[in-house]
Amino acid sequence: MTEHSLWRFSRALHRAINERQYADLEALIDEDVDWSIYGPIDMFPFLGARHGKASVLDVIKRIADSVRVHRFDREQILLGVDSAASMMRYSLTALDSNKPISLRLAQFAQFKAGRLSSIRVLIDTFDLVEQALGRPIHLPRMAS
Amino acid sequence: MTEHSLWRFSRALHRAINERQYADLEALIDEDVDWSIYGPIDMFPFLGARHGKASVLDVIKRIADSVRVHRFDREQILLGVDSAASMMRYSLTALDSNKPISLRLAQFAQFKAGRLSSIRVLIDTFDLVEQALGRPIHLPRMAS
Repeated sequence: MTEHSLWRFSRALHRAINERQYADLEALIDEDVDWSIYGPIDMFPFLGARHGKASVLDVIKRIADSVRVHRFDREQILLGVDSAASMMRYSLTALDSNKPISLRLAQFAQFKAGRLSSIRVLIDTFDLVEQALGRPIHLPRMAS
Repeated sequence: MTEHSLWRFSRALHRAINERQYADLEALIDEDVDWSIYGPIDMFPFLGARHGKASVLDVIKRIADSVRVHRFDREQILLGVDSAASMMRYSLTALDSNKPISLRLAQFAQFKAGRLSSIRVLIDTFDLVEQALGRPIHLPRMAS
């Protein structure tokens, strides 16, 4: 049984972010890749949509310049033949402030011939924003 | 081929929220269900974790008291034998303010004998909070 594309991609991505080694990752991204991480792009310019391998590699380099991954747990995972969905919890450090950030996200990925062709990432963004600000945002109570 | 548990659960859930008809849904929830919707519970008390069928039905009733579902699109979906993951976009109305709310979420569900035994829901919460407040929250730029 061959290894699922997700595992290879995930190893290469974490290596790219933590060690700034991009060669493995580059070989695992489709030329025509479609990439979106939903979230407040005014605060985090490396969120948002990118199209094509060059743009995606560029944004991964920006992510590598901003955070280091300490640990991640896959809390949920579902694998299809050429697709994968997972819910993950990351422990990161924000490199500019040296602050620890704990983040939960969900990702849905599609692969074509072993290369990433599409990924959509959803983040618990309010929690992320409060951690990045370093203080709670006061919220009114909206419902009983 | 029998219908996947997700479709039956999804129909019953939307019927519960929009029509406050809970009988179908009640039959599709395991007694020992584990339920979490991650998000700011101070603002939205119906978010958070619940355990057991009675607590889950109670929180679904609170959700039904707070929102109406106008439309949903499944943008991504992955089905396992007894599991399902999807990324969805909802158009809702907040019933107290009559405000429209557009929401993206990811859910990972597990079923046991056709009944929901576990669900984890992640929401793009910052976007949700801004819509519920009806104004943008000013954010500093955190990275280049």
